[in-house]
Amino acid sequence: MVRIACCQLTPEVDDPRGSAARAREAIGDAIAAGAQVIVLPELAPCGYIFRSREEARAVAEPADGPLLASWASEAARGDAVVIGGFCELAPDGRLFNSAALVDPTGVRAVYRKLHLWNEELLWFERGEDPAPVVATRHGRIGLAVCYDIEFLELTRGLGLAGAEIIAVPTNWPHQDPPAGERPIVKSLAISTAYLNHVIVALCDRGGAERGVRFQGASVIAGGDGAVLAESAPGAATEMLVADGDVAATRDKRLGARNDAFADRRYEHYSAGLLGAAPHPGA
Amino acid sequence: MVRIACCQLTPEVDDPRGSAARAREAIGDAIAAGAQVIVLPELAPCGYIFRSREEARAVAEPADGPLLASWASEAARGDAVVIGGFCELAPDGRLFNSAALVDPTGVRAVYRKLHLWNEELLWFERGEDPAPVVATRHGRIGLAVCYDIEFLELTRGLGLAGAEIIAVPTNWPHQDPPAGERPIVKSLAISTAYLNHVIVALCDRGGAERGVRFQGASVIAGGDGAVLAESAPGAATEMLVADGDVAATRDKRLGARNDAFADRRYEHYSAGLLGAAPHPGA
Repeated sequence: MVRIACCQLTPEVDDPRGSAARAREAIGDAIAAGAQVIVLPELAPCGYIFRSREEARAVAEPADGPLLASWASEAARGDAVVIGGFCELAPDGRLFNSAALVDPTGVRAVYRKLHLWNEELLWFERGEDPAPVVATRHGRIGLAVCYDIEFLELTRGLGLAGAEIIAVPTNWPHQDPPAGERPIVKSLAISTAYLNHVIVALCDRGGAERGVRFQGASVIAGGDGAVLAESAPGAATEMLVADGDVAATRDKRLGARNDAFADRRYEHYSAGLLGAAPHPGA
Repeated sequence: MVRIACCQLTPEVDDPRGSAARAREAIGDAIAAGAQVIVLPELAPCGYIFRSREEARAVAEPADGPLLASWASEAARGDAVVIGGFCELAPDGRLFNSAALVDPTGVRAVYRKLHLWNEELLWFERGEDPAPVVATRHGRIGLAVCYDIEFLELTRGLGLAGAEIIAVPTNWPHQDPPAGERPIVKSLAISTAYLNHVIVALCDRGGAERGVRFQGASVIAGGDGAVLAESAPGAATEMLVADGDVAATRDKRLGARNDAFADRRYEHYSAGLLGAAPHPGA
């Protein structure tokens, strides 16, 4: 079993220094709770609702800079793996909405979000590399960020690439769910876990920023689709902790005769999955 | 708006004549309720829990035989489209777990289930053709059967091929959902609708057969993922009727800058989606 924490926070775009400090402290709190895999929200150390590209640039950090080094130092206190979002300043000066995976040895992977949401398109470049799966001491961890969860091609690809845990730093703008229903982002995380037999640890942010309210819909779902932990409705900050059965995710069998991956009939799926133009009416 | 009905029934493998009659009657009932698109369960006219291939063969029907002709006659009473599962006897003698789409002109499409579940593998051959999308008077309708819903590649492919409604004849064996949760099959139908901006009309069966209990988890979900109608927990037979906004499914936009289909970054998805071997650990 691997102990997983999602640290739902309330970053403040007007207080990046405080936001970064709270993200770092949250790593320490999760380690104190015994967490081995720790997930932070998207853009956790800097906030989300930028007003200009310059504002984003002012808080951008290189992947080899002090921000991620500080996460690695925190991770080293507990032999933990930390996944969190940050505003990445690339060596060529471009900005990306990225997620890093760090462990006590340093930065293991940086994933640049492939599917940018709304105004992110104004501040960031779209990623150009597939979402990675990283072999860690605590399991093979696939990375995705927020809106990526709506692209089942991406999450299925992580499952096929051997991900046992999919970590999803998220900033989900608030939408009222229908009465009695979970926010859609939680339901998507749960379905993704069930369909791929992987653990999904989706860490959302809560609170509001410059008039935009966020969902605060963090969830940890097991490889059978069971909800292991989820945020309370309306919670701004909350630390979810759950023990996930990583070994079980490697077994894709369903009863005596079926297998979620081996049963795929890929020779009969639409070529559109990998790029042919959709139907004109679609 | 298109009026959609899911006719949740309780076929009886020991009474195929009665089962077929009830399926036909259900079409009439749905037309009386104003339904334009009518979905029946998987293997509705013959039941599911076979004990031998011979038993399945005894109730198999050719696609050009009297069974589907009778559905077309019923459909003609209301200018309706009917989608339902049946045990198909192919011209070459093989058996398939198929779904037919018929309208007043006759049989428009037969889809042979690509992903067979458990003992179906003993009685049926796996389909060899992609799941189709059929242009009808009441919208473009994609076909899938039961366990197919777990293969998001198939349902996404239907969306990309222009499906506005995905009809899913189903026989879902009962599993106790966690307290307060929907049966997983309903959640998958809802996620599929949301992610592809299509209406999903999943018609399950209820009741029990030879000791196997079924879920009775029919649901009609709108293209925004809203539940338009769903079966009562534990219901054996029930007719769901809902009006679906087919035109809205053609608009895949999400706010000002996003589009569920156009935002796909297919050049960066795993080649495993269309067949490369999964990671050895997966």
